Amino acid sequence: MNFASDNWAGVSPKVAAALSEAADGLAPAYGFDDLTQAAEAKIAETFETDVAVFFVATGTAANALSLAAASGPGAIGFCHADAHIAIDEGGAPAFLGRGLTLTTLSGANGKIDTDALDRALSFYPAGSFQRGTPRVVSLSQASEAGTAYTADEVAAIADIARRRDMTVHMDGARFANAVAHLGCTPAEITWKAGVDLLSFGLTKTGAWCAEAIVVFDRSKAPDVAAHRKQAGHLFSKSRFISAQMLAMLDGDHWLELAGRANGAAGRLAAGLERSKNARLAWPCQSNEVFAHIAAARLARLQDEGARIYPWEVRGAPESEASRPGETRVRMITNFATPDREIDAFLDALDRD
Amino acid sequence: MNFASDNWAGVSPKVAAALSEAADGLAPAYGFDDLTQAAEAKIAETFETDVAVFFVATGTAANALSLAAASGPGAIGFCHADAHIAIDEGGAPAFLGRGLTLTTLSGANGKIDTDALDRALSFYPAGSFQRGTPRVVSLSQASEAGTAYTADEVAAIADIARRRDMTVHMDGARFANAVAHLGCTPAEITWKAGVDLLSFGLTKTGAWCAEAIVVFDRSKAPDVAAHRKQAGHLFSKSRFISAQMLAMLDGDHWLELAGRANGAAGRLAAGLERSKNARLAWPCQSNEVFAHIAAARLARLQDEGARIYPWEVRGAPESEASRPGETRVRMITNFATPDREIDAFLDALDRD
Amino acid sequence: MNFASDNWAGVSPKVAAALSEAADGLAPAYGFDDLTQAAEAKIAETFETDVAVFFVATGTAANALSLAAASGPGAIGFCHADAHIAIDEGGAPAFLGRGLTLTTLSGANGKIDTDALDRALSFYPAGSFQRGTPRVVSLSQASEAGTAYTADEVAAIADIARRRDMTVHMDGARFANAVAHLGCTPAEITWKAGVDLLSFGLTKTGAWCAEAIVVFDRSKAPDVAAHRKQAGHLFSKSRFISAQMLAMLDGDHWLELAGRANGAAGRLAAGLERSKNARLAWPCQSNEVFAHIAAARLARLQDEGARIYPWEVRGAPESEASRPGETRVRMITNFATPDREIDAFLDALDRD
Amino acid sequence: MNFASDNWAGVSPKVAAALSEAADGLAPAYGFDDLTQAAEAKIAETFETDVAVFFVATGTAANALSLAAASGPGAIGFCHADAHIAIDEGGAPAFLGRGLTLTTLSGANGKIDTDALDRALSFYPAGSFQRGTPRVVSLSQASEAGTAYTADEVAAIADIARRRDMTVHMDGARFANAVAHLGCTPAEITWKAGVDLLSFGLTKTGAWCAEAIVVFDRSKAPDVAAHRKQAGHLFSKSRFISAQMLAMLDGDHWLELAGRANGAAGRLAAGLERSKNARLAWPCQSNEVFAHIAAARLARLQDEGARIYPWEVRGAPESEASRPGETRVRMITNFATPDREIDAFLDALDRD
Repeated sequence: MNFASDNWAGVSPKVAAALSEAADGLAPAYGFDDLTQAAEAKIAETFETDVAVFFVATGTAANALSLAAASGPGAIGFCHADAHIAIDEGGAPAFLGRGLTLTTLSGANGKIDTDALDRALSFYPAGSFQRGTPRVVSLSQASEAGTAYTADEVAAIADIARRRDMTVHMDGARFANAVAHLGCTPAEITWKAGVDLLSFGLTKTGAWCAEAIVVFDRSKAPDVAAHRKQAGHLFSKSRFISAQMLAMLDGDHWLELAGRANGAAGRLAAGLERSKNARLAWPCQSNEVFAHIAAARLARLQDEGARIYPWEVRGAPESEASRPGETRVRMITNFATPDREIDAFLDALDRD
Repeated sequence: MNFASDNWAGVSPKVAAALSEAADGLAPAYGFDDLTQAAEAKIAETFETDVAVFFVATGTAANALSLAAASGPGAIGFCHADAHIAIDEGGAPAFLGRGLTLTTLSGANGKIDTDALDRALSFYPAGSFQRGTPRVVSLSQASEAGTAYTADEVAAIADIARRRDMTVHMDGARFANAVAHLGCTPAEITWKAGVDLLSFGLTKTGAWCAEAIVVFDRSKAPDVAAHRKQAGHLFSKSRFISAQMLAMLDGDHWLELAGRANGAAGRLAAGLERSKNARLAWPCQSNEVFAHIAAARLARLQDEGARIYPWEVRGAPESEASRPGETRVRMITNFATPDREIDAFLDALDRD
Repeated sequence: MNFASDNWAGVSPKVAAALSEAADGLAPAYGFDDLTQAAEAKIAETFETDVAVFFVATGTAANALSLAAASGPGAIGFCHADAHIAIDEGGAPAFLGRGLTLTTLSGANGKIDTDALDRALSFYPAGSFQRGTPRVVSLSQASEAGTAYTADEVAAIADIARRRDMTVHMDGARFANAVAHLGCTPAEITWKAGVDLLSFGLTKTGAWCAEAIVVFDRSKAPDVAAHRKQAGHLFSKSRFISAQMLAMLDGDHWLELAGRANGAAGRLAAGLERSKNARLAWPCQSNEVFAHIAAARLARLQDEGARIYPWEVRGAPESEASRPGETRVRMITNFATPDREIDAFLDALDRD
Repeated sequence: MNFASDNWAGVSPKVAAALSEAADGLAPAYGFDDLTQAAEAKIAETFETDVAVFFVATGTAANALSLAAASGPGAIGFCHADAHIAIDEGGAPAFLGRGLTLTTLSGANGKIDTDALDRALSFYPAGSFQRGTPRVVSLSQASEAGTAYTADEVAAIADIARRRDMTVHMDGARFANAVAHLGCTPAEITWKAGVDLLSFGLTKTGAWCAEAIVVFDRSKAPDVAAHRKQAGHLFSKSRFISAQMLAMLDGDHWLELAGRANGAAGRLAAGLERSKNARLAWPCQSNEVFAHIAAARLARLQDEGARIYPWEVRGAPESEASRPGETRVRMITNFATPDREIDAFLDALDRD
C-alpha cells in the first residue's frame, strides 16, 4: 500500500532496455550526438511544431531555468500558492532566476483563479520599479491538486498574461498524466493554448531522469543554452537522457505509462468515493488522488503500513478545507501500481 | 496639502549645516575617518550597547543586505504581506539575498500576527530542503500601517524566531517615529526585545541619505562588510553620511524631528476622526495616517491639489477593508509639515 | 604631504553651497523631481546627445550595474589586469553582474593592448557555452596608471568590440581628469569613439557622492532602471545627487576642478622627473602620478609623514617593472592640493 | 582514430547492468533509498574516512557547488589558468558561487606553481574588502595537462591554503586516472594531503552520470544540501546515480577502467615519443596525451579522419610553447579505446 510518490517508482522496462542499448560506442558529447538530435526531433514531432529543446537534470532545474529565461531584474512571477515552484523547490526560482519574486494566488481545485490573477496584477502598475515587473505566469499541468487544466482554462490564463506582455510557463512534471486524462494532443494543451515554455518531465512517468525545457516561442528564451551551462545542467553524455526520451515518446509509450498510472488513480478515487471514511478533496484527473480521511482511520492505515501523507495546502479556498476530524491526504500512483495494492488499501480503509 | 511621502522632504537645517562643515579638508576614505568613527560610537551610545555599524546608500540596501546576512541557501524569510521588503523594493531581498524567498503573513494593524507566523512556520519542517529553511523574520517599525509595535509585541515575535533559530530583523525606515511615539529607549525596542539586526534609517526623518545596518548580534552577521562592498554600497567619502548621522543623533535631534512629524500626523488623525467624510483605517502611531475616505470626496480633494494616494493592501484582515463607497488613502507628514496644510486639508475634506 | 587618494578630499565650496540650497521644500522622490530632471538634461547637454542617466551610490555600483546591463548568462568581460573593476571592487562585477567573469589583459601604460584583446578573444569561439560569450570590454578613463586613452585608442578597442557584438563600457571614475588633460569634448572621447555605457563619476572630482550610469546606446541597457532598484541603488531623495551634479557641470566647474588636480599632479611629476631619487613609472596624464622611488628614500619620506602608497601591479609588461632597489608608488592629487605640499615633498625627496 | 574526449565514450557493461537491475520496484526518493545509503557508505569506505556525499548532475555542478560552499561575499578563488573551472564551465563558479571571482595562476605541467600562488596571495592583504578575501584554492587531479599531482605537491598547496584559512578543493573529473597512475590510495591523495572538498567524477571513467561532491571537512561545507536543492541538482530518483557509483566502486572497477584508459594513453604517448613528427608536450600521467605535432602532418591526419583537437593554453610557461611549425594537440583515451586505433594513428602519423 505504497502511495508515497511517483518518484519512488523505477523505470519502465522499455526505458531500461533503451539505455542499455545506448551504452556502447563513441558519440559526441554535450548534445551533439545523433540520439540527442533524434530526441529533439521526436519532441518537435510530438508537439507538432518547431521547438528548441534543452535537457536538464531535474524538474526543479527545468522550472527554474524556464522562469529565469522569462525574467530579468525586478521580475515578478505568478503561480498558485500550492505550486511546486513556490513551495517545494528550495528557492530555486529565486536563485537560478537571479532574484525572481513569486507572487502566489489561491484558486479552487489547485488551479490559478483568473480573477485572482487579475487582482494580483492590478497590484503591479506598469513601469513601477518599486513593485517590480510582472514577467511570467506559471501553471502546473497536471496541477498540484491532481486536476488538469482544460485548453480553455490555459488559454484564459494566457490571455491575461499576453495583456501584460508576460511569458506563460507550464510545469509539466506530470504533463503525461494530464494529456492522457484530457485526451487532447500535446500541442492543443501547450502552444496552441498560449504556452511559451514547458518543463517537460518524463521522470515521474517512468524514466530515470528525463527532463527537458521545451521552448515554443524562441524569442522568449534567448539565453537558455548559456544559462543551462552556467547552472551546471549541460550533461556531457547527453545521449543517456535522449535514449530515455526516445524510448518514452516512441509509440506513445509515455501516454501508455501515464494511462496506467491514471487508471490506478481512478480506481483508487472511485473506491474513496464509495467509502464511508473518506471523501475526495478534488476530482481525480491524473495520477494524484487527494482525499479527506477520518483522522483516526488514517492513523490506523499508516500503522498497517500504508504510505500516504497528510497534505497541508496554502492556496485552497475555505470551502475546500478538511472538516473537523478529517485529515487531507495525498496518494500517488505510478505506471506499475498493482490493482491489488489499491484494493487492499480500500479494503483496509473501510474494514471495521 | 502635500501628504505624498516623507521622502519628498528635504533636510533639517542642522543636517545641512553639519554637511557644509564637513566639506573641507582631507580624511581617510571608506569609513576610516574620524567622523565615521564618531558616528559609529554615537550609534552605540544611542543603543546603549556594543554594535557593528554599516552605512549604506538606501533603506532598500539596508534591508536587503541585512536579510542577506541572515540568510543562506534555501533561506525563507517571513514578513507582513504589506511589508516594504515584500512589495516595494523591486525584488532586492531576493537578489541581494542571493535567492531568499519571502513568505508573507497577514495581520491586523499592519503588524505580524504571531499565530499566523506560527502557522506559517509549521509549513516548514526542520531539515526540509524542498521547503527551504526559515532563517529570518522581519518586522517594520513603525509598521507599513503607521502603527508601532510595543516592546512586548516585538519580544513575542522574537520568541517564536528563537525557537527556530531564526534571526530577527527590524526595518527601521521610520524607526525614529516609532521611538518618539512609544516613548521608549532605542535599546528597549530593539536588542532588549530580541532584535538582531536593524535597518536604521534617518533619511525620511530629515537627512539626505543616512541609512545604516546596525548589528546587535555580530555572530548573526559575519559577512556584512564584504557583502556591502560587493553590492556597491561602501561609500568612499563616508563622512558625508557620518556628518548627517551625527547631526541627527546629537541632542536627540532625530527624535525632535520625528516628534514634529508625529505631531503633525496626530493633528491630521484627530481631524479625520472628527470628520463625517472619513474614518481612520488604523490608529496613528507615527507619521503615517491611513484613512477610509468617501471616494467622491477624495476625487474632489485631489482635484483641489491634495497629494494623497489611494492605498491598496494585501495583508489586512477582511475586517479592515474599506466599505462600499470608500477608498483607503495614505497620508504622510514630515518634520516640516505646517499645521496650516493639515487644517486646510481637514477644512476641504468637510466643506460642502 | 598627503597624496593618499582623491577620495580623501572633501567637496568644492560650490557643491557644498548647492546642496545647502536644495535642502528646503518638498520635491518628488525617486528621481521625479525637477532638480533630477535638470541634472539629466545637463548631462545630455554635456555629452551633446540623447542619453539615459541613472544615478547610483558609488563608482563600484556604476561599474557593476553597467557591466550587468551588458551581460547575460555565461558573459565574459575584458579589462586591463589592473582595472579597478578587476581588483578593487570586492567582486561586485561578478555579483551584481549575476555571474559575469572578467578576463584580464596586460598592456603598457595601464591601457588595454589591442593585440592582447584580440588574442584573448580568439580563446572564446562564437557559440561556445563552455568558454562563455564575450559581451563587454571595459576601459578606465583615466586609466589605473594615470594615463589617458586618446579618442583613437578608444575607437580601436571599440572596433574590436563591435566585431564580436560586444558592448563598450568606460569606467570614468576620473573621467573629468582625462577630459581636462585631453582637451577634447566629453562626446569625442565617449560615444563618438564607440563607448556605449559610461560610469560618470564626479565624487573624486570634488563632490560627496555624484555617480551616474550614462547610457549612450539604450538598446544595450534596457533593464538598468529595474536592476538599479533591485540592487538598492535608487535614492529616495534623488535631488541630493542632482544638486551636486548640476553644481559640477554648471559652467564646467568639473573641468575646472579636474584641471586644478591635474595641474598639481603635473607639478609633482615634473619634480619627480628632475629628481635623482625617483623616475616616473608612466606619463602623468591626469591627477595620478606613479613613480619608482629609491626604497630607502621612500621609507624616510613615509617616516616624515608623507602619505604615499607602494603600488603593486599585475598587468604591466616586464619593461615597466621597478628596478632593484626601487619601489613603485602611487600619488594622487585633488582639486585642493596646495602647491606647498608638492614642493615640500619634492624637497624632502632630494634632501640629503 | 577517435581521441576527441572521454565524454564520447558510453558506459562500461557492468554499469549498464547495474542500472538495469535497479530499474524495478519502489524506493524512497531524494536520496533516502537504500542504494544511495549504500553508495555513500561505499564512498566513505573508499576514502577510509567519514564523509558527506552529495550527488549532482554534472562535474560543472560538483565544482561550482563545492566552490560556492567554500566561498562567501567577496570571495576569491585560485586555480591554474587552464583549469576547467576557469575556462570551460561557462561561468558556473561565478554564478552558482554567487559572485566568486577566480584568480588564475600559471604553472608548468598544468599544475599550480606554489610560488605563483604565494605571489598571487600577497596581492590580497587580509581584511581588504576592496581586493576581496582569498577563500579557496582548486586544483585539478589529474590536471588539465594530463599530469598528476603527487601527494607532496598537493600538500604543498594545501599548506599555503591553510596559512590563509582557505579551503582546498580538488576537481576530480579524472580522479580515477590520477589514482590509477599514482598507485596511491584515494585517501592519500585527498584528505591526508589536505583536501577538504572533492568533485568525485566517474562519468568520464565510464558511467552515464556519476558525479559527487565529497566533503572531508564538514565544517567547511555546512550548506551544500540546501544549495544543491536550490540549484536544481537534487535528483528525485537518486538510485540511478547510486547504482552507477556502486557498480564503479565495487571491486575497484573504477580503477580497472581508469587503468585501461591510462594504458591506452601510455601506448599512445610512447609512440609519440618515438615519432619524428611529434613530441610530447607534457608527461602522460593519466588518460590525456598532449603533443606538439608538425602542423602539416596534423592537417593530413585530420583529413584521414583522426579526431584530435588543437589545444590552446593560457597558463603554460613560455618554455612549454609550441615551436614554429608545430601545433599543440590534445588526445584522450577511454576505457574502451582499442589498441588498433592507437596503432593506426601512430602509423598514419609517421607514414610518408
